[in-house]
Amino acid sequence: MKHLISLDDIGRDELVGLLDTADRMAEVLSRPQPKVPALRAKTVASLFFEDSTRTRLSFETAAKRLSADVMTFSAASSSVNKGESLRDTVETISAMGVDVFVVRHKTAGLPHAITTWTDAHVVNAGDGAHQHPTQGLLDAFTLSRAMGRGNDLTGVRVAMVGDIRHSRVARSTIRSLTLLGAQVTLVAPASLLPPSLIDAARGRVDPAWPVEVSHDLDSVIGDIDVLYLLRMQRERMDSAFISSPNEYSAHFGLTASRLGWMRPGAFLMHPGPMNHGVEFAVSAAELAAQGVTNLITTQVTNGIAVRMSVLFSLFSIDSPEAAHD
Amino acid sequence: MKHLISLDDIGRDELVGLLDTADRMAEVLSRPQPKVPALRAKTVASLFFEDSTRTRLSFETAAKRLSADVMTFSAASSSVNKGESLRDTVETISAMGVDVFVVRHKTAGLPHAITTWTDAHVVNAGDGAHQHPTQGLLDAFTLSRAMGRGNDLTGVRVAMVGDIRHSRVARSTIRSLTLLGAQVTLVAPASLLPPSLIDAARGRVDPAWPVEVSHDLDSVIGDIDVLYLLRMQRERMDSAFISSPNEYSAHFGLTASRLGWMRPGAFLMHPGPMNHGVEFAVSAAELAAQGVTNLITTQVTNGIAVRMSVLFSLFSIDSPEAAHD
Amino acid sequence: MKHLISLDDIGRDELVGLLDTADRMAEVLSRPQPKVPALRAKTVASLFFEDSTRTRLSFETAAKRLSADVMTFSAASSSVNKGESLRDTVETISAMGVDVFVVRHKTAGLPHAITTWTDAHVVNAGDGAHQHPTQGLLDAFTLSRAMGRGNDLTGVRVAMVGDIRHSRVARSTIRSLTLLGAQVTLVAPASLLPPSLIDAARGRVDPAWPVEVSHDLDSVIGDIDVLYLLRMQRERMDSAFISSPNEYSAHFGLTASRLGWMRPGAFLMHPGPMNHGVEFAVSAAELAAQGVTNLITTQVTNGIAVRMSVLFSLFSIDSPEAAHD
Repeated sequence: MKHLISLDDIGRDELVGLLDTADRMAEVLSRPQPKVPALRAKTVASLFFEDSTRTRLSFETAAKRLSADVMTFSAASSSVNKGESLRDTVETISAMGVDVFVVRHKTAGLPHAITTWTDAHVVNAGDGAHQHPTQGLLDAFTLSRAMGRGNDLTGVRVAMVGDIRHSRVARSTIRSLTLLGAQVTLVAPASLLPPSLIDAARGRVDPAWPVEVSHDLDSVIGDIDVLYLLRMQRERMDSAFISSPNEYSAHFGLTASRLGWMRPGAFLMHPGPMNHGVEFAVSAAELAAQGVTNLITTQVTNGIAVRMSVLFSLFSIDSPEAAHD
Repeated sequence: MKHLISLDDIGRDELVGLLDTADRMAEVLSRPQPKVPALRAKTVASLFFEDSTRTRLSFETAAKRLSADVMTFSAASSSVNKGESLRDTVETISAMGVDVFVVRHKTAGLPHAITTWTDAHVVNAGDGAHQHPTQGLLDAFTLSRAMGRGNDLTGVRVAMVGDIRHSRVARSTIRSLTLLGAQVTLVAPASLLPPSLIDAARGRVDPAWPVEVSHDLDSVIGDIDVLYLLRMQRERMDSAFISSPNEYSAHFGLTASRLGWMRPGAFLMHPGPMNHGVEFAVSAAELAAQGVTNLITTQVTNGIAVRMSVLFSLFSIDSPEAAHD
Repeated sequence: MKHLISLDDIGRDELVGLLDTADRMAEVLSRPQPKVPALRAKTVASLFFEDSTRTRLSFETAAKRLSADVMTFSAASSSVNKGESLRDTVETISAMGVDVFVVRHKTAGLPHAITTWTDAHVVNAGDGAHQHPTQGLLDAFTLSRAMGRGNDLTGVRVAMVGDIRHSRVARSTIRSLTLLGAQVTLVAPASLLPPSLIDAARGRVDPAWPVEVSHDLDSVIGDIDVLYLLRMQRERMDSAFISSPNEYSAHFGLTASRLGWMRPGAFLMHPGPMNHGVEFAVSAAELAAQGVTNLITTQVTNGIAVRMSVLFSLFSIDSPEAAHD
């Protein structure tokens, strides 16, 4: 794998390969010394033009577990204020001998553009509303391993709830879960669905969205195996004709009464960071009482193993115990 | 030792153990290659919600000397602006596999709260006006080693001067020095003493403060072995009814004339950063002429060995030459 | 070499030694694992009081390739806002056991001052309009290796174009190129030349400037082997009586028509970051068609090997394969 830009670029076999490699990385992380020399002397540059401490730290931790050197480039401290263009920045850092760029940017398509400016590997850490492929991978890894189903999620029913329209997580996670066989239902007000899906509700039009659509969480929640809550950003509520966090919670949040309708044995997921009381307003005790397993912390933990798998797979090395040379 | 939150939690034996381990670390630091593999593959996260470059760099250097990986989290670049709570931040970073949190925060008690949110070790790097335990340790280490008295400061007379009321350094250093037997006199205007100590001046009321109190530096300075000057913050002068840095210096600063009353062989300490001309208005030459030894730079240097001792002791490893596994 | 403050402090032999060591470092960088243990357990502190991501990353990458630990100190996150003086900052960091300070500051002479405050090595990464010695070294390295002339540039004709007056790059690169025998012509409006050179134009007065001077790029460009374009800062245009980037480009930029007068086999250099369309308004294809080799990216790449050479040479170690002890 030369780059990881979008999960739409990879098929089931490649997805399964990345997840199986993540299993090996999880084994490394379970050791007293959770570190292997696989990427010794490789340099991973993290270019975060959009703030995301959690994703940046996850990638940087994964790189260090593989013994890579990490170069952190944050837009705030960059030469952007000297009028240097983004392309100049990438070309300059590339010329210093960087092996991998991990890029987050608000512009969809920018990580792909970077692949044309450098010979280094490029990993998309989130571009606009387009893709967040490592989130899709860690979600598929977390759910399939939690269910003990290997790489097969055939027949597993997932409801993904919230702001699908602006969510790169939705695009990547729908792709990874459906590639493994899951059935995904999107639950959102029409204003938070992608325009192409509004039509899709009366006969699916876009094969890139192999999903069902619902506007009513209550009619769905009793039948699902997995409740996947997306982050709701306050600034988007206006355009969604939702006047307050309370109103959002009433329609699309996991409230205590709504939890009561969930099936025991079901799972709860969220990409973080959460808005407490908005997407999610139940306690750990209430979840446990209903027999619902909260995977949110596991998603964060698995993010390290999955990102190690991605970084490792860029270099096609047989064993993580051996440094590449 | 699972955590280091407050020196009030440890007794004389544990204090002596940490200081003796710091001796071993100082020996490591004296080598041409001042680095040992003790914490290889451990991850130390520094969470500084309050700016303190010198303390952060000291901890991070200590961690690197022990071969740990360091994850720097600064509040400025964090997801706090996405409305993520502090607890979410800690839980997320913890889920990534962090072994130690080094925490500074303006809120007293926050490092303790963090111990309930994570299974990782927590080291308090300063919380509000509560504690700064590694400063207390490095002060005890610096003074006892400079005096060549091992771990016994019995009968050593220390004057601590300045803003005791708002100082976490005072609380931690009083604890460490008195545990080793030193006699500490606090010298400050009443407005800069903790309220409980105002009463303490007429019959000690709070056994947590095993100290004498004075409002007059001139009546104390001729009898002491150690002059410990605290940092005076300008914004606190108003509430102290002190109108200017000059006035502070005239009453509580080490001036040239006041230096003349100090005993030859006495020591000078300050936790840094200093306000030149405020707490301290004498030259190196004047100190030398009076036979007073300035330990301020030694305090900074010893901060590395002491913080290595603390990080190392969290894991209970026999020898720093061996990596933990 | 204890420090590297200015190329005016070193002679031809020392320059040649640094360039030859850079050849060895370039060989290291060509390996599958481009890393050597030469500076293991050494700590390099980068103190950038002026923003320059590219120079900072280049030094930090060089340090990591030599296995040093890197301590990044940025002014923005420093204790400067607590009123700590620069000297205090340097003394404090020095007391923590730093081996090398890499310093950038807007004040000419500051890196030299730091050598009097610390026992550590000091490398100037750019001080005001004074010197940027590693830029001078990497320019000499890049040009001499690209021309295949070893360390001898005798008779090579270089035109350096732009804001000589405010450029530390000009001062360092003129020194390094002329030490190797190159003939340098400065091309700039009188307002962008150093005052001493205005007189120099009618009989050279300052032997520190062993150069020719011209105000007319068109009369020079056909005769040169190397066109070295300096960065033009917009805020300096006013004082240069140049009303716009377009006007600058018309007089001193490399335009397509001006490129047509260049000799095939000539070289193009720029210290970066570039102002596209100002100093430089031709395409890669146009350069190739004229037979002009663009060395700008090579300069960035060579910056790593040259800075490794400088850091390595501070410690006088025989072989980069061996860690110093």
